[in-house]
Amino acid sequence: MVKMVETEVECCKIVSEDVKDAIVLEGSPELGLIGNILGWLLVEELKMKQIGYIDSKEFPPLAVLYKGIAIHPFRVYSTDGIVLFLSDFIIPPNVSYDMSNAIVDWMERNNSKGLITFNSMVVMEKTGSVAGAANSEEALKKLGELDLPILPFGNVNGLSGSLLTKTAIKNIPASCLFAEVLNQYPDPRAAASLVNVLNKMLNIDVNAQPLLKEADEIEERLKELAKRVQSENEPESPIYS
Amino acid sequence: MVKMVETEVECCKIVSEDVKDAIVLEGSPELGLIGNILGWLLVEELKMKQIGYIDSKEFPPLAVLYKGIAIHPFRVYSTDGIVLFLSDFIIPPNVSYDMSNAIVDWMERNNSKGLITFNSMVVMEKTGSVAGAANSEEALKKLGELDLPILPFGNVNGLSGSLLTKTAIKNIPASCLFAEVLNQYPDPRAAASLVNVLNKMLNIDVNAQPLLKEADEIEERLKELAKRVQSENEPESPIYS
Amino acid sequence: MVKMVETEVECCKIVSEDVKDAIVLEGSPELGLIGNILGWLLVEELKMKQIGYIDSKEFPPLAVLYKGIAIHPFRVYSTDGIVLFLSDFIIPPNVSYDMSNAIVDWMERNNSKGLITFNSMVVMEKTGSVAGAANSEEALKKLGELDLPILPFGNVNGLSGSLLTKTAIKNIPASCLFAEVLNQYPDPRAAASLVNVLNKMLNIDVNAQPLLKEADEIEERLKELAKRVQSENEPESPIYS
Amino acid sequence: MVKMVETEVECCKIVSEDVKDAIVLEGSPELGLIGNILGWLLVEELKMKQIGYIDSKEFPPLAVLYKGIAIHPFRVYSTDGIVLFLSDFIIPPNVSYDMSNAIVDWMERNNSKGLITFNSMVVMEKTGSVAGAANSEEALKKLGELDLPILPFGNVNGLSGSLLTKTAIKNIPASCLFAEVLNQYPDPRAAASLVNVLNKMLNIDVNAQPLLKEADEIEERLKELAKRVQSENEPESPIYS
Amino acid sequence: MVKMVETEVECCKIVSEDVKDAIVLEGSPELGLIGNILGWLLVEELKMKQIGYIDSKEFPPLAVLYKGIAIHPFRVYSTDGIVLFLSDFIIPPNVSYDMSNAIVDWMERNNSKGLITFNSMVVMEKTGSVAGAANSEEALKKLGELDLPILPFGNVNGLSGSLLTKTAIKNIPASCLFAEVLNQYPDPRAAASLVNVLNKMLNIDVNAQPLLKEADEIEERLKELAKRVQSENEPESPIYS
Repeated sequence: MVKMVETEVECCKIVSEDVKDAIVLEGSPELGLIGNILGWLLVEELKMKQIGYIDSKEFPPLAVLYKGIAIHPFRVYSTDGIVLFLSDFIIPPNVSYDMSNAIVDWMERNNSKGLITFNSMVVMEKTGSVAGAANSEEALKKLGELDLPILPFGNVNGLSGSLLTKTAIKNIPASCLFAEVLNQYPDPRAAASLVNVLNKMLNIDVNAQPLLKEADEIEERLKELAKRVQSENEPESPIYS
Repeated sequence: MVKMVETEVECCKIVSEDVKDAIVLEGSPELGLIGNILGWLLVEELKMKQIGYIDSKEFPPLAVLYKGIAIHPFRVYSTDGIVLFLSDFIIPPNVSYDMSNAIVDWMERNNSKGLITFNSMVVMEKTGSVAGAANSEEALKKLGELDLPILPFGNVNGLSGSLLTKTAIKNIPASCLFAEVLNQYPDPRAAASLVNVLNKMLNIDVNAQPLLKEADEIEERLKELAKRVQSENEPESPIYS
Repeated sequence: MVKMVETEVECCKIVSEDVKDAIVLEGSPELGLIGNILGWLLVEELKMKQIGYIDSKEFPPLAVLYKGIAIHPFRVYSTDGIVLFLSDFIIPPNVSYDMSNAIVDWMERNNSKGLITFNSMVVMEKTGSVAGAANSEEALKKLGELDLPILPFGNVNGLSGSLLTKTAIKNIPASCLFAEVLNQYPDPRAAASLVNVLNKMLNIDVNAQPLLKEADEIEERLKELAKRVQSENEPESPIYS
Repeated sequence: MVKMVETEVECCKIVSEDVKDAIVLEGSPELGLIGNILGWLLVEELKMKQIGYIDSKEFPPLAVLYKGIAIHPFRVYSTDGIVLFLSDFIIPPNVSYDMSNAIVDWMERNNSKGLITFNSMVVMEKTGSVAGAANSEEALKKLGELDLPILPFGNVNGLSGSLLTKTAIKNIPASCLFAEVLNQYPDPRAAASLVNVLNKMLNIDVNAQPLLKEADEIEERLKELAKRVQSENEPESPIYS
Repeated sequence: MVKMVETEVECCKIVSEDVKDAIVLEGSPELGLIGNILGWLLVEELKMKQIGYIDSKEFPPLAVLYKGIAIHPFRVYSTDGIVLFLSDFIIPPNVSYDMSNAIVDWMERNNSKGLITFNSMVVMEKTGSVAGAANSEEALKKLGELDLPILPFGNVNGLSGSLLTKTAIKNIPASCLFAEVLNQYPDPRAAASLVNVLNKMLNIDVNAQPLLKEADEIEERLKELAKRVQSENEPESPIYS
């Protein structure tokens, strides 16, 4: 039987199987929901298996439906040598500190090889480029080998940011991939732009097509909405489902 | 004399008689107040008996009048093999975590057969359909046997959501029924749409007529209000009593 | 010398003389400030004596002037067989839970005969009627003997509501009187409407005249204000002093 | 060497020399900043010496410049038989309870003769009058001997209010002087109106001239601002420095 | 190997090497971000080495990118006889109290020679002047020797303010330099105005040119933005990167 291990810090706990020597991915929804959208793609395309969840009293009361089944809003998934921490809600800032400690504890105990997080950079106009950053000179050099442009300056918010500095203290190499977004709305096209880089980094072969299709649908819906709004002269907020 | 048992967690406690081997229903007011409206219908139509209440320092100071008598705002009711947790106020999110733990503890101790919660799905236009979701493959299969459409994706907020994931951890089968609502206002017609499904699930014969009558009255009142507002040009908020 | 007893719960304490076998009245300012206005009338008309106060770190920093003397904002008064808990500020909701526990503890220790609280029902148009509710069938029957209409359904907010349910648990009979109000502003006329009922219940003979005079003055002031505002076209908020 | 004594309560502490048998003045900034403005006048005119400060984790991070030197935002001053607690920021309500306990503890230990606090009464139109209130019949009688009109009814907010009731419990005579203000802005002219009364009460001879000059300057600045705003049609907030 | 010492107070901890007998600079971003902008200039121009960081659960989840590497948002730097505490986010007020205690503890243990903090004074119109203040007569006299105008009155907010009063209690000389700013936006030109004074105080030779160039660029961008906004009639917020 699989052994579940609790990694508990003050305000949250990870209830999960242990997976040794993996690359850890983190996908929590910052601007554009990049990490979350990309995480779901990986779950589906790599047929990742849920191996645990993170629980906290500070989380919003929430279940997420997946093919009709209610699942935890923050889950841990795994497949060959890859572990994914995937959250479906924005982590409350007061939980990020403890949660990143818990995740880094988990990584230390499991001798994780490194961390990759996903985030976004807000731009006035999209140019189609992606960028990377890392938590050490060595990690940065590795990113350079991928011909990935480096994001030299800026802020990295959220769990992404906390994990980058906390892994640095423990000498765990970590990098962050940034997609271009225009605003805070879900942007599957931006998430898709990271897939090629990630394929190279993890030596996998994920297809970004589902995200591009989803993006087409959202954009189509927004156009129709714009038409309707113009004709009805009534405001409506774009919906993502 | 009846024995009252306290199921206490950090921020709230259930003071209630124990009822073994029952199906547990949960009715707390999310969008449309579906669970609450449906819960009150069951209390009246099944002549359920109050067997306890939930108390918490975090609750709003509130009593609810029922036929002139002030009762607890969160009560536990029971009738043949059915137990109902019925709240008349929106559970503060910071209490939901502990409260769902308390309810699941109560269910474990009482060997409850399963959980049914009620929620809503916001739609642009009503089609009259209802949908279901569950907390496991087995529970989902059972729902399918009722010819109930499944809600594949989406978020389940509130106590509903917390209970679905926490019962899953304890291997207690749970399902959630969703009624269509247009907005956050009380919607007895939407609540009524769930009655047929519930009758099948619980093998009971509750009549939705009282809710439809209530809906007619609310809609009548809103129409009159609309007329008056148009003539007086003054805003008024719709009232539910 | 009088013995002062401290009834202390987590976030507040009652520092008061003990008074045995009394009817306890509670007057805290909900919509219309009914309980507070009525409480002050009783203090003056029944020449009630201050026997204590309630203190809490959660209270706003506040003293109340009475004939030039600064007094506690939440006081306990007494006269023949009647005890009054009178607050001059809205009880913070997070204190209501503990405070109602403290008051009910005090009542149990002092073998209080029952509780009467005051509240309001918001109406579109005043009809001049008052209504009652109770915390048990027996208490409700007694109200019926007064030919008092019963308020069958609705919410009872604030300390009023908490006390009704907490006395019920301890089998202490309690009732609540509701005056009609149009909005949240102080309404001495509405408070006056409860005096006759209260006279019957307590077998006292308080004159509502001072409240009616006060109401006349407020209404006069509001009319003048309305005139001035119309002429000056500048908003001003009505003041109660 | 002077001995510093710590009077510590849960959320703040007074670090100060002890001064026996003094009259204690309290000047914290309520509406019109009356107490603060008057306190600074006393410090300058009576050449009061700083003997301590109050410290609390709940205070805003703040230093106050006085002749180029950064001083504590809440200081204790002393001169012949007079002690002044002077705050340069609005005391957070949640600190007032503990802080007034700390100040009253200090007063008890130092056998203080009494307390005088300063506050304001909001009026529609200024009449130039001041008023007083006290925390006991005896203290009120003393105020009457000064031919000071009494403010019969009303609320006393802030540290002022808390101190009035807490000194009453300890049988320490206290009084409060009220200046007329029109709004919440700093009003040195209103503060000046209290100087004569205070001179009589403390048998001192402070000159209100500096405050009247300051008031002239503020009013001059506001007039110019009004002119500029009218011509530029841009809003600016009045500044006090 | 370098020894890292933890200076821990209730809500934050300094993890840093010890540096004896240094002058300590503090640069946290108040209005105009003066301290932060100046701090970064010093890091670059003096090639300061990072020797530690400050960590707190109360900090926002955030990493800062510097040449593509994610670094702590609050770092400690050092070079010959100078230590710099540099924060890239606004310190939450509730952390300032404890954090200034931690920094002053660090300074005491390391026998620091003194503290220099940076802040701003909001003016209607810039005159190009800078001003200073200190935490004692002696420290003020030293500032006078630099022909620096003294800011006689005013408030010093933030960590700056807390540090000035807490160093005073420990008899550590401290001074604060104020740059003129018009509003809360980042103002490298204002930060540059402090460089000459700082050069004299620390006997260093830092060039303000990079800040003036940055200011030119920001101002250029804002002008273009203004033009575009005028033509497009759409609001956009100025961005600092």
